[in-house]
Amino acid sequence: MRARLMEATVELLVERGFAGTSTTLVSGRAGVSRGAQLHHFPTKNDLVVAAVEHVTDVRGAELAAAAERGLPRGDRRTRAVLELLADHFTSPVFTAALELWVAARTDESLRAAVVPLEQRVGRQTHRMTVELLGADESRTGVRELVQATLDLVRGLGLADTITDDTDRRRRILDRWAAALDQALAPGSAS
Amino acid sequence: MRARLMEATVELLVERGFAGTSTTLVSGRAGVSRGAQLHHFPTKNDLVVAAVEHVTDVRGAELAAAAERGLPRGDRRTRAVLELLADHFTSPVFTAALELWVAARTDESLRAAVVPLEQRVGRQTHRMTVELLGADESRTGVRELVQATLDLVRGLGLADTITDDTDRRRRILDRWAAALDQALAPGSAS
Repeated sequence: MRARLMEATVELLVERGFAGTSTTLVSGRAGVSRGAQLHHFPTKNDLVVAAVEHVTDVRGAELAAAAERGLPRGDRRTRAVLELLADHFTSPVFTAALELWVAARTDESLRAAVVPLEQRVGRQTHRMTVELLGADESRTGVRELVQATLDLVRGLGLADTITDDTDRRRRILDRWAAALDQALAPGSAS
Repeated sequence: MRARLMEATVELLVERGFAGTSTTLVSGRAGVSRGAQLHHFPTKNDLVVAAVEHVTDVRGAELAAAAERGLPRGDRRTRAVLELLADHFTSPVFTAALELWVAARTDESLRAAVVPLEQRVGRQTHRMTVELLGADESRTGVRELVQATLDLVRGLGLADTITDDTDRRRRILDRWAAALDQALAPGSAS
């Protein structure tokens, strides 16, 4: 039942935005009684934070599994890692998180819940990216390049929210993969 | 009067978000009668789109003026251009645009107005960045690097909305400036 509530909440955040999502709509879509829903999640904020956390964790595990199954080694690896990240930051999970994030900016109690969630997810995504790229963070500037890569794909995610940005994004990621390989190369100035 | 309405709308978008902004609040803050406001902007959507367009143009002119006054030449120029862009993407104008952008995702009529505005502003910002960096877009891959730079600062803007990200952002921009100079250098592989 909890999983049904979580999925329904994320679906509604994607379809109607934060303002258009209500606990009544969620319980209706999930097929869960109002009483049961309120027992688990007394407020809308409890529900949306738990839902974004839930799907982020599910999606993170899917990402890790996809990375384990299918990433090429050698020359094409960096580009493939960027593709995986960009897929993530243009997915419904990113959209739901964006709705939550923006709502939290002007809602003190929501922000108190969203900041630690975002920090935890940010650390996980960073660690996964370092591993997938095989980046050596003991070298000067490498940590910042990985962070920049994640900020870039976050910006690309935002650019994709109201228009389809697929073609432009592909070309940018092609170019950034080359620049990143060059910047991460052992002999590179940093 | 129009300028007062525009400024009041942006202030309210920043303070209360899109959902918390109403035409009544705006006319009250601007000290403009409801009748006069409705005459110029019949709906909330008319008002918020015009306001974001107005302050984006004002801010764009300020950016161009700041660039003309004070950017260093030589080694420190790229970093200074990035600072200017990052200041823009962490300003109240970006915050107001973000509110509009996210609201437009789930509001068809708002999206119809926001998409062309965003495309026009995006082209202007791109052109200004090319000029400030002295980038030669006839070279393969240079256009995409400029775009990546703008997507990066957009991502950094988003990262700054609910927490103060100043220190992390400074280190990332230092590193990006070096990578960008390396990738834009005439002898660089592309």
